[in-house]
Amino acid sequence: MWQSKGKWRDHMQNIIKNLQLNPPLVHNITNYVTVNDCANVVLAAGGSPLMADDISEVEDIVSISSSLYINVGTLNKRTIESMICAGKKANELGIPVVLDPVGMGASKLRNEAVKALIEEVKFSVIKGNISEIKALDVNCHNSGGVDALEADLVTGNTLESSMKFAEALAVKYSTTIAITGPIDIVTDGSKTKTVHNGHAMMSRITGTGCMTGSVIGTYIGANKDDIVEATTLAIVLMGLAGERAYEKVSANAEGTGSFRRYLIDGIGLISLIDLEAGAKIESYQ
Amino acid sequence: MWQSKGKWRDHMQNIIKNLQLNPPLVHNITNYVTVNDCANVVLAAGGSPLMADDISEVEDIVSISSSLYINVGTLNKRTIESMICAGKKANELGIPVVLDPVGMGASKLRNEAVKALIEEVKFSVIKGNISEIKALDVNCHNSGGVDALEADLVTGNTLESSMKFAEALAVKYSTTIAITGPIDIVTDGSKTKTVHNGHAMMSRITGTGCMTGSVIGTYIGANKDDIVEATTLAIVLMGLAGERAYEKVSANAEGTGSFRRYLIDGIGLISLIDLEAGAKIESYQ
Amino acid sequence: MWQSKGKWRDHMQNIIKNLQLNPPLVHNITNYVTVNDCANVVLAAGGSPLMADDISEVEDIVSISSSLYINVGTLNKRTIESMICAGKKANELGIPVVLDPVGMGASKLRNEAVKALIEEVKFSVIKGNISEIKALDVNCHNSGGVDALEADLVTGNTLESSMKFAEALAVKYSTTIAITGPIDIVTDGSKTKTVHNGHAMMSRITGTGCMTGSVIGTYIGANKDDIVEATTLAIVLMGLAGERAYEKVSANAEGTGSFRRYLIDGIGLISLIDLEAGAKIESYQ
Repeated sequence: MWQSKGKWRDHMQNIIKNLQLNPPLVHNITNYVTVNDCANVVLAAGGSPLMADDISEVEDIVSISSSLYINVGTLNKRTIESMICAGKKANELGIPVVLDPVGMGASKLRNEAVKALIEEVKFSVIKGNISEIKALDVNCHNSGGVDALEADLVTGNTLESSMKFAEALAVKYSTTIAITGPIDIVTDGSKTKTVHNGHAMMSRITGTGCMTGSVIGTYIGANKDDIVEATTLAIVLMGLAGERAYEKVSANAEGTGSFRRYLIDGIGLISLIDLEAGAKIESYQ
Repeated sequence: MWQSKGKWRDHMQNIIKNLQLNPPLVHNITNYVTVNDCANVVLAAGGSPLMADDISEVEDIVSISSSLYINVGTLNKRTIESMICAGKKANELGIPVVLDPVGMGASKLRNEAVKALIEEVKFSVIKGNISEIKALDVNCHNSGGVDALEADLVTGNTLESSMKFAEALAVKYSTTIAITGPIDIVTDGSKTKTVHNGHAMMSRITGTGCMTGSVIGTYIGANKDDIVEATTLAIVLMGLAGERAYEKVSANAEGTGSFRRYLIDGIGLISLIDLEAGAKIESYQ
Repeated sequence: MWQSKGKWRDHMQNIIKNLQLNPPLVHNITNYVTVNDCANVVLAAGGSPLMADDISEVEDIVSISSSLYINVGTLNKRTIESMICAGKKANELGIPVVLDPVGMGASKLRNEAVKALIEEVKFSVIKGNISEIKALDVNCHNSGGVDALEADLVTGNTLESSMKFAEALAVKYSTTIAITGPIDIVTDGSKTKTVHNGHAMMSRITGTGCMTGSVIGTYIGANKDDIVEATTLAIVLMGLAGERAYEKVSANAEGTGSFRRYLIDGIGLISLIDLEAGAKIESYQ
């Protein structure tokens, strides 16, 4: 039923093999709220994290990296400049860059910073929740913070329109758009995938979105020529880890502190076989 | 025996109902040491956390928030300005603000920043350990760091004098003073509550104080007209979570890494019924 | 067989006794990635953490501290100045200072900052992985990020040459050099210790190195006259905690999220008796 059974199998095997053969160094310029989780999931996913945000060194750091993950969660004037500088250098060197426009729509500073980033840097992937990604398109849209608005959520009813929206945006920005939520959408405008893994409890801890961004950075760092597929598989990994974590906490009547631990455990423990067995992906052309 | 059995019951039910009906967005300008725990406890307590500290966006962010929590743990010149700016905007909009004067008394910068904050911003709640709160009063007092001094601790013997001190300070600053410790005191000068929940192990992990501040921010964000009661209940919740976490680690001979996980679990799992059954509150007029 | 059985026993007892009699305040100027873990391990190891990095207050903060731990993990121009300022004040007051040159060799900014720190501040301990410590010597060496290069790792074959290198560097900088890895080396140039505790899984989570630095800061904060021995015992404690954590996760098929929790648990639970029984130290003159 799910595409993971068919030709996706080869893709998966390849993506994981590349990760194992060339463990990527992932340069993260990210917020101070969830940065520790980001570092730990890069390690769990098979990469090595580097965090550095001073403008005097980001070019040096990105130059030894396999990918760059930019997350504007707690941006400030100093780090916005570093993000742009690191992004440009990554472009120059052909290193893939992921943008996570956290809280896009919630402030003028955020809107302008993300706009400047998109103008000056070519992103391989732009990933966010549906409200953040919508705010990329309609700059005046004001979000309810860092969480997606209920009304925006991608569900069965809104899936088709959300996919069309994502595809158009991917074409507009010549990038891969990844919208995370109950159903995840990954598209470069021509190839589109949806992921039906994950659990609602993932939104009850901070940082699930940021961790997803860092795992995407890890996966594409070793799979530069397979951006849509590597991004999709990274999202599947997070989703499966979330499902497993939920099973554990619900079996033991545990809370979100435990959920977070099991989630990070899962990212490191889920094998290629688990991915093949558990992935719920649909492909559209 | 404890007040939770009597008229407090209605208060509790109301406070929790308001949280569920209007989950608050809590803007946190806090330190980078415990910020992740703060975000996770806001979520566990039923709110949604926002962290943003650039002066160009704090007014936008606080404007979409239900409350503002200011914690000076790792303050610097840049963020002090943002704190004052966000606080003023919150005042303008009638959004309640909590101040956590972490390490007050430990440096001139801290003393002056807190003094400036109190002069320029009207706080709904000022929360700290006894040494920090004492340092608010006698500006020359030099604390032993971020922990309360042994000699200052509120215990049976010093309870009455500490309550009087807190009441006078609450009147002086037209605020609610919350002193956390073995016995917690919450007072606005006319109504005073003491909380007898909690466990000493809470001081063996970093961030319990900061988490308490963020939970207070969450509770008052949905209960603007019930500041003393909402603050008291937030402290009860933390205390009960600490008691439960201690039971778990002592049953399994576990350490502080586990304690932290169980504490955050507890904040999300403790129900209104648990609060009613476990709260140890005394009320004074 | 291991030195812990012999005269080391007295040293150990003394070091732990000093910690218990005079719990140190440890001022950490460290990165925002692993700072929470650093604070928690200082507490677990018997100290009290202070984090403060604004140049206007670091002198005040270090003045009430027992030791200073400087970690350049996410350095920036602002914090580099604070590090130097705090270090000089610590020197003036006879407070021991630990340097952790994280990622040394990975950028010009890092190389220059560490060089400036070493020129302007006298360090009691400089601790890093072998690649970072090698980069201290040959300034042009470019590391592969924040992890040690495979080729550099201290193992049976390279132990002797690495010890000689560390001893020469300790003499050159009049300091104690601590190289962490599969085999750890601690030397002041005349006395040299190797530690054979620990587990490879410690490198699968972020922050083990930083936590080791903070624990060293804690141990030497209470043992200013016993730097080599206190540093060695701090590394043994981390190693034993890593061994125990690995036993737990492998018994339960758990991952790195759980490993981190058990590691922090262990730091607080391992007693003097455990240290005596488990330490694998060799001493050389």
